[in-house]
Amino acid sequence: MSYDLIVIGGGPAGYVGAIRAAQLGKRIACVEKERAGGTCLNWGCIPTKALLKSAELYQLMNHAEEYGLKADKITFDFEKVVQRSRGVSDKMAKGVEFLFKNKKVDYFVGSGQVGKDKKVKVTGADGKTQVLETKNILIATGCVPRQLPGLKVDGDKVVTSREALVLKKQPKSVIVLGAGAIGIEFAYFFNAFGSKVTVVEMLPSILPLEDGEVSELVARSFTKSGMEILTDTKVEKTEVSSTGVKVSTSGKETKTLEAEMLLVAIGVQANLEGVLADGLKLDLEKGYIKTNDRYESSVPGIFAAGDIIGPPWLAHVASHEAIEAVEGIFVPGKKPHKVTVFPACTYCHPQVASIGITEKKAQEQKLKFKVGKVPYRASGKAVAAGEAEGFVKVIIGEPHGEILGAHIVGSDATELIAELGLAMTLEATVDEIHATIHAHPTLSEMVAEAALASHGQAIHI
Amino acid sequence: MSYDLIVIGGGPAGYVGAIRAAQLGKRIACVEKERAGGTCLNWGCIPTKALLKSAELYQLMNHAEEYGLKADKITFDFEKVVQRSRGVSDKMAKGVEFLFKNKKVDYFVGSGQVGKDKKVKVTGADGKTQVLETKNILIATGCVPRQLPGLKVDGDKVVTSREALVLKKQPKSVIVLGAGAIGIEFAYFFNAFGSKVTVVEMLPSILPLEDGEVSELVARSFTKSGMEILTDTKVEKTEVSSTGVKVSTSGKETKTLEAEMLLVAIGVQANLEGVLADGLKLDLEKGYIKTNDRYESSVPGIFAAGDIIGPPWLAHVASHEAIEAVEGIFVPGKKPHKVTVFPACTYCHPQVASIGITEKKAQEQKLKFKVGKVPYRASGKAVAAGEAEGFVKVIIGEPHGEILGAHIVGSDATELIAELGLAMTLEATVDEIHATIHAHPTLSEMVAEAALASHGQAIHI
Repeated sequence: MSYDLIVIGGGPAGYVGAIRAAQLGKRIACVEKERAGGTCLNWGCIPTKALLKSAELYQLMNHAEEYGLKADKITFDFEKVVQRSRGVSDKMAKGVEFLFKNKKVDYFVGSGQVGKDKKVKVTGADGKTQVLETKNILIATGCVPRQLPGLKVDGDKVVTSREALVLKKQPKSVIVLGAGAIGIEFAYFFNAFGSKVTVVEMLPSILPLEDGEVSELVARSFTKSGMEILTDTKVEKTEVSSTGVKVSTSGKETKTLEAEMLLVAIGVQANLEGVLADGLKLDLEKGYIKTNDRYESSVPGIFAAGDIIGPPWLAHVASHEAIEAVEGIFVPGKKPHKVTVFPACTYCHPQVASIGITEKKAQEQKLKFKVGKVPYRASGKAVAAGEAEGFVKVIIGEPHGEILGAHIVGSDATELIAELGLAMTLEATVDEIHATIHAHPTLSEMVAEAALASHGQAIHI
Repeated sequence: MSYDLIVIGGGPAGYVGAIRAAQLGKRIACVEKERAGGTCLNWGCIPTKALLKSAELYQLMNHAEEYGLKADKITFDFEKVVQRSRGVSDKMAKGVEFLFKNKKVDYFVGSGQVGKDKKVKVTGADGKTQVLETKNILIATGCVPRQLPGLKVDGDKVVTSREALVLKKQPKSVIVLGAGAIGIEFAYFFNAFGSKVTVVEMLPSILPLEDGEVSELVARSFTKSGMEILTDTKVEKTEVSSTGVKVSTSGKETKTLEAEMLLVAIGVQANLEGVLADGLKLDLEKGYIKTNDRYESSVPGIFAAGDIIGPPWLAHVASHEAIEAVEGIFVPGKKPHKVTVFPACTYCHPQVASIGITEKKAQEQKLKFKVGKVPYRASGKAVAAGEAEGFVKVIIGEPHGEILGAHIVGSDATELIAELGLAMTLEATVDEIHATIHAHPTLSEMVAEAALASHGQAIHI
């Protein structure tokens, strides 16, 4: 009895790839060490969104008077906030387990190890092993948080995003090291509930991959809400004591910071520990599996998708890659699509979402382009909702009017970016976006207005 | 001194048309009887969204414990809720007035009357008149609420949406007559703040223009939240007393309803009172101005756009028509676009948004189609946000896979519909929507999943 495909890893690449393959009528197994849904569902995207929802609502309640409402003694129970987040992850993980059953994916809980002979050894938590046979393998083992060399993650004073999701109590003060999406979301979360937050980022701006104006607006908003933001600043030394951590920095801001907790959010690294049996060698690059146009590794029949093949380390990119890889294996004539355009989101408040290139990148690439920008305060919906902070910015190619990039900061940015994603897939032009009637009053009207603004034809600015 | 165009009416058709024309370098005036922004901005779309935001937040605060939060004595100040809404309208109206200045549109506050000779007489509130000369006229005077024959709107016991926006105090009980978007939004609003609400609708379902399953879900949700919903029910008699109103109904539900207030939301009618001088005859249909392919009335040089040319009575359609009409007048070679596809939104909770045709319509038209439907509870973002009620449903044409219609009920439906609008403009297929990477975790992923579901390829259901 042999499988058509065994997927190693049950995250957004693994479970999605496994289900898609099962839909194609193939015999599929998915091996997951911990819990269906992987990091995304259990330790990343999903539980953080639950935490952030509590934080946003707490902040909104503290501004209730602006909406004609009132409440006495607005409080939060940190343990319950965390419990709710765990409950959401648990529910969604159960959902994936149900999908496996429903879609006829054999689900193995254990560590999967790929042998030289393409057999997969599964070792359960109890140490028992079984060996599965298969025609193809998809490695989708993802990444784990990078740690600071020489600094032990103790889950109390020093944490990564994973431990930060299951804290027993709220830290009074937090140093967030790294201002990418993960660091920024936690910074917002802790600050919203009243922790004193300091963000330390080595690069010149927070959210360094985002458009400069977006990063600036978020930094301003964060500073206004009481956070300390240190950019161009490096960690020189860390020291853990009985009461917390001391971090000495160099660069633009040379100081010694002290806090109850240090959150290390300096990125991720490939997770291949124990995945490849002795004697099985795949070509790697910086620890990531090298793949060809068909997501196939250097060993025929062993494929890889998701974070384990390298950046951008995004769940939706991982799922897309896995589907493409699987269809490439099983659908005759299918030429898998390699990802070039994808949205990126940060769920702090104001939200950030983007797709395509930034204005700076467009300049560096010496492209001919125009910029259209519309502030949220020009949107009736935004003002009515009390969400007038932010803007929609689009980078429009010349002379054809296609979208090179879009950058949104503000309420619901992460939903608004979807239309621009479709626009880029379809190579839509400014004219076509303008020809689309956007519902009034919605925030999405700003997308059309920003496109028009690039040609000086916006109505509302 | 003569204008190139005088626009009568400063609503979403009028002010948008005037600004677009000014952008084209023309000499433009806009005549508005009351306040820039018209009904939409002052008495419709915008102030209702402000009220609804307060209502949603109030409801959310009452569920704060689900998010790990707590507040004692959650109360609201009805007067302040209304004041905030008026403030939002005032701010946006000032914005339009500023735009007029900025874009060099001459703004006249007064009643505009179009003469036989195409001169426009403007009568100010003080009774003073002036006469303006122009080459072209765009009539964009919109609609006013329809009243129930024989029942006087007194602004207290009997109101239309307009009076409902400036109530001095909250009615203990409300009968909402008419379950279109306006009636349903106010029903949600009053119920959220604790008024006893009864909705009376003549047709078999609330939101009768929406897909049947959408209407059902909203009706279930409303009923669960304490409203009484009477469909297939007609008003036979109304009676106003010192304490309130009595409404006798016939049809499916024959009863006598009593409430402090009756909100009449049975639609709108053309607003041409005083707009056409004696002797000027335009062809009308059911009171609406008949226009040709260029939005021109039966009198050359007199154009019309927006609600005054008939359904669908939507602000975004009005703005689009006005831009098309104006470009048709001034841009050589321009062939104005007539509106066929447009989104429609209702901002109750759960929100409703749709575009294109319903499943029933597709059946009636004997089209070949498939339906894809994804419930919100399958979305990690929805569950994390505590917004798991609702679904995304798409009607997909066969064999090409184009979108015939989309129907969304649930959180943020009104923003999610934008992507589907662009998809319809571009005649995108299921494959193209699927090829677009949707950010995770977002509600917009459901749009892609629904498209896939139509072909049995959804991953998460």
